[in-house]
Amino acid sequence: MAHEKYQDLIEKLHECMEACNHCYDACLKEDDIQKMAECIRLDRECADICGYLEQAISRNSPFISELAAACAKICQACGDECNKHDHQHCQDCAKACYECAEACKQVS
Amino acid sequence: MAHEKYQDLIEKLHECMEACNHCYDACLKEDDIQKMAECIRLDRECADICGYLEQAISRNSPFISELAAACAKICQACGDECNKHDHQHCQDCAKACYECAEACKQVS
Amino acid sequence: MAHEKYQDLIEKLHECMEACNHCYDACLKEDDIQKMAECIRLDRECADICGYLEQAISRNSPFISELAAACAKICQACGDECNKHDHQHCQDCAKACYECAEACKQVS
Amino acid sequence: MAHEKYQDLIEKLHECMEACNHCYDACLKEDDIQKMAECIRLDRECADICGYLEQAISRNSPFISELAAACAKICQACGDECNKHDHQHCQDCAKACYECAEACKQVS
Repeated sequence: MAHEKYQDLIEKLHECMEACNHCYDACLKEDDIQKMAECIRLDRECADICGYLEQAISRNSPFISELAAACAKICQACGDECNKHDHQHCQDCAKACYECAEACKQVS
Repeated sequence: MAHEKYQDLIEKLHECMEACNHCYDACLKEDDIQKMAECIRLDRECADICGYLEQAISRNSPFISELAAACAKICQACGDECNKHDHQHCQDCAKACYECAEACKQVS
Repeated sequence: MAHEKYQDLIEKLHECMEACNHCYDACLKEDDIQKMAECIRLDRECADICGYLEQAISRNSPFISELAAACAKICQACGDECNKHDHQHCQDCAKACYECAEACKQVS
Repeated sequence: MAHEKYQDLIEKLHECMEACNHCYDACLKEDDIQKMAECIRLDRECADICGYLEQAISRNSPFISELAAACAKICQACGDECNKHDHQHCQDCAKACYECAEACKQVS
């Protein structure tokens, strides 16, 4: 079944979604929020597509490859932005994003 | 942090989302699909709201209580429908739905 | 059909979703972004639930009433926050949120 | 602003989302539901990605091109499936899917 074949990807997507949403929440509370604007924006983009792809995989969507290609690009961009910032939540998020981007590339 | 406080609920939501989407996929392949129409419909409703609430919790939404109240009702209804059918995927789904409905009620 | 009975609500939800997302994008570009953090957060909450409810109505979901109750609260909260700010995108968004909250209350 | 530049695409996505969800709902009520299983599945896929892309455009996502490429493929596949069936809701849906696929290709 699809959701078993893709179990590793689902886990990476789930961790990435949680890391992005936690980073988004934390960025909105930072004193230097001005510098975090792009991070906030990309966290939302990345959390949303990861959640979407999780749903798509678990319902055995015929379009996992196409969606994973888009997701890989978004994870990469979000990881690159988060990686610029020293906040722990940004560094954690960058790591989750890069791992998820790799997992997405395997199936796209 | 919100996503830690609600860790049990997030797990229940995730299991319920996966069970509903698996049941939806399996129902669409059943020979007696005519009998499964309501199950297919409610599986989608339930998977979608569970995925939505997971996202909302992990971004520290101020509206978890309101969304969990709606999610509890939808999980209950989906569980009741799945429970009518003997297919293993329906029985598994009913169990996941009832557990998720209980977890939602704790926070609504 | 559901999507015809609810045509006015669908339009309000759509306008509100667009206004919230436009306000979110504009807030992320403002010089006084520090003051807009709560607006950014609520814009996302409101855009997401409005988009979700639009989908639910158009697929004839049995749970429109429950979802509209949650949506009304979220629209109200987003409108109240946007209303505090003089930016045109905030004022426009507040107006769309209040109109959508009213439309949601009619069916909840 | 993004949501103005893409106004035509947003309209096509919205019409396609509504047509797919209406077709999905109608297919679940058909007597020959056995024949409609793939249509039900693709209607959900297509409605979900169209709604997702609408949201992404209106929040000025940097990833419209990648998402539109995936959406175009999904709209095309859903249109091809709907086109096989004589039900009016299927024919209407096929038309909306093909128009949306074309609009997506313009920006992907």
